[in-house]
Amino acid sequence: MQFYGYFRSSSAYRCRIAFNLKGLEYDFTSVHLRRGGGQQKTPEYRAMNPQALVPTLVNGDLTLIQSMAILEWLEDTYPEPAILPADKDKRAQVRAFANIIACDVHPLQNLRVLQYLGDEFGADQAAKDAWCQRWITDGLMACEDLLAKQSHGSAFCFGETPGLADICLVPQVFSAGRFGVDLAAMPRVTAVYEACQALSAFANAAPGKQPDAEE
Amino acid sequence: MQFYGYFRSSSAYRCRIAFNLKGLEYDFTSVHLRRGGGQQKTPEYRAMNPQALVPTLVNGDLTLIQSMAILEWLEDTYPEPAILPADKDKRAQVRAFANIIACDVHPLQNLRVLQYLGDEFGADQAAKDAWCQRWITDGLMACEDLLAKQSHGSAFCFGETPGLADICLVPQVFSAGRFGVDLAAMPRVTAVYEACQALSAFANAAPGKQPDAEE
Repeated sequence: MQFYGYFRSSSAYRCRIAFNLKGLEYDFTSVHLRRGGGQQKTPEYRAMNPQALVPTLVNGDLTLIQSMAILEWLEDTYPEPAILPADKDKRAQVRAFANIIACDVHPLQNLRVLQYLGDEFGADQAAKDAWCQRWITDGLMACEDLLAKQSHGSAFCFGETPGLADICLVPQVFSAGRFGVDLAAMPRVTAVYEACQALSAFANAAPGKQPDAEE
Repeated sequence: MQFYGYFRSSSAYRCRIAFNLKGLEYDFTSVHLRRGGGQQKTPEYRAMNPQALVPTLVNGDLTLIQSMAILEWLEDTYPEPAILPADKDKRAQVRAFANIIACDVHPLQNLRVLQYLGDEFGADQAAKDAWCQRWITDGLMACEDLLAKQSHGSAFCFGETPGLADICLVPQVFSAGRFGVDLAAMPRVTAVYEACQALSAFANAAPGKQPDAEE
């Protein structure tokens, strides 16, 4: 299994957590998003990933893009330990929580989007940070509300073991720190983040621990 | 089954197509995104959907947000006719295609995002249209590339019957028209759109045919 990612990519981070939770080995290739005009834009990489985004997973004849599709494929291919509940209603709740982040938060803070804000609207770093803070705060507050409706008393989003919701939440909270988001109003989000960080599957997936990590 | 949506919402449109393909009846409540400061922002609606976005599905005790989670739940609950392939590798490819649109295109053209561009960056309608054109073109060109790799010769994205990829593609192509996107370089995307529009499940889900439709 070949995995093309970048240490700082939130969507690659998700996949790394899932690999670790499921105990899967993979060959990693770093796709440096800023070096040489962006290694994701080479014809070779675009042949695998027509969006010129990370991550990409290659397994035999299968070339798969989009982190949420990769995570579902990992679950379908290596079902144990499960990252989705067996009950279909609970599974849907977990997917909804994960998609708050995967659809309505993370894509708005992507490198190409921030570059557009700078190039076309003259946004400086402070304006880019304010942009990211707005969408991250909106999304994580919705996550906080959903966690408040849970009554399982577990350390994780939806039960006794970490799953897809936690896999998406942790990289987003990490990224919130980079953009200076105030998490004071989100005690449940923060508690899940800390509980996950205590697990090696999450801790070892952190950007700073990857072979392509930089300061 | 209660469905809260808005005629012009691309994510509500996806759900309507799936309801129709699966032959499901539902009670519709319109949540007008512009009237009265936005009906999605009322405390009553936020209690169901903490993101204050459409759509929301309510089925007995289950309150479900996020269109992609709703679509997966519909598939899990009403498996026939299927909108995802039985083969796990093909299923992953379909989800990846759908997520190009659901993650990397549609959220960038959401009403709240366009309002932010106007309020904070002084973007006028032409600048907002250019923003939408950029992300829609990027995403649909990636879809075109993925369709070019298919060799099934069918009218739909991934086979003889329409599925999740088509369900996401059609509302996005419809929306591309609203924002003046040039689709000339995307003959496969355009052909799938036209094939889908010939089916009543798609045609009847169009924004202009909904009870809350406006000019």
